[in-house]
Amino acid sequence: MVKRPAKADFPVSNVRRYLEPGPIVLVSSRWRGQDNVMTLGWHTLLEFTPALIGLMIAGGNHSFDMVRDSGACIGNTSGAAVDKFARFGLTAGQGAVVDVPLIEECHACFECRLHDDAMVDRYNLFVFEVVKAHMAPVPRHPRTLHYTGDGVFMTAGKAISRRSKFRPELLD
Amino acid sequence: MVKRPAKADFPVSNVRRYLEPGPIVLVSSRWRGQDNVMTLGWHTLLEFTPALIGLMIAGGNHSFDMVRDSGACIGNTSGAAVDKFARFGLTAGQGAVVDVPLIEECHACFECRLHDDAMVDRYNLFVFEVVKAHMAPVPRHPRTLHYTGDGVFMTAGKAISRRSKFRPELLD
Repeated sequence: MVKRPAKADFPVSNVRRYLEPGPIVLVSSRWRGQDNVMTLGWHTLLEFTPALIGLMIAGGNHSFDMVRDSGACIGNTSGAAVDKFARFGLTAGQGAVVDVPLIEECHACFECRLHDDAMVDRYNLFVFEVVKAHMAPVPRHPRTLHYTGDGVFMTAGKAISRRSKFRPELLD
Repeated sequence: MVKRPAKADFPVSNVRRYLEPGPIVLVSSRWRGQDNVMTLGWHTLLEFTPALIGLMIAGGNHSFDMVRDSGACIGNTSGAAVDKFARFGLTAGQGAVVDVPLIEECHACFECRLHDDAMVDRYNLFVFEVVKAHMAPVPRHPRTLHYTGDGVFMTAGKAISRRSKFRPELLD
């Protein structure tokens, strides 16, 4: 069985730690009693406060309609999303703020509320605000998966601290 | 000395291989005879054809004005951007399509032309079209750097192919 790590609250202004390195995330959504999950690799941070992220959800996806109509989703980061998806069932937890299932097997879950849909028609780009973050305390840097296309994934390597070389004003 | 790998043309519709995993890129720009380079980690792919990418360039950066005014930039992916930046000089090459210096030490250089500035005022988000890509043939999966904030970087780990498990229609 896949573990369901216990999570603690995490400051939404610091979700960059998990999203900025560019992992694949699982985006879960709920609309009219139906739950859905999709993998997503096209995302970017946009702002620390409010904690804004941009997600490109292709129009052909069933999740596209659900996210657009419900105005909410949860981004779940995982260490082995693809294999879990293929081989294991995922456990749906309950979001604390938005009515969307979070995935308990994931290392982190970010509850998101739609902030701006002005770029959806042109780019399928949804701007979400992360309104609540749940995070497993360890490991601090989970071994995420990153997609390169063509069926090839890249795994996260080791973390390297250069904190001592940074001036304080660079440490945002 | 840092190597300057010879590069070949690379299809712009496939730049995802290098950008989707989420590495830090060096964004170079040129305006009125002045060249500039900045590191950037907030980016996403938006479309394969045309090859559109979104770059969030904070308004306080000198590069912001240069990119906005010139309407062009080059995204350069590198295996060791941060240390190079601190310790070594970078060699400015000439873009083939846009008048922007590419960084010869980098593994790949993507010449970009501004496609849409509608999201700049609100999110500092520039939509660029990659109009020309230069790529070192090897390694196929360079060891990129990814930023987690707080002075801590994540290095790319090994590539894992799951190509044999993908159905052809999933291999885009």
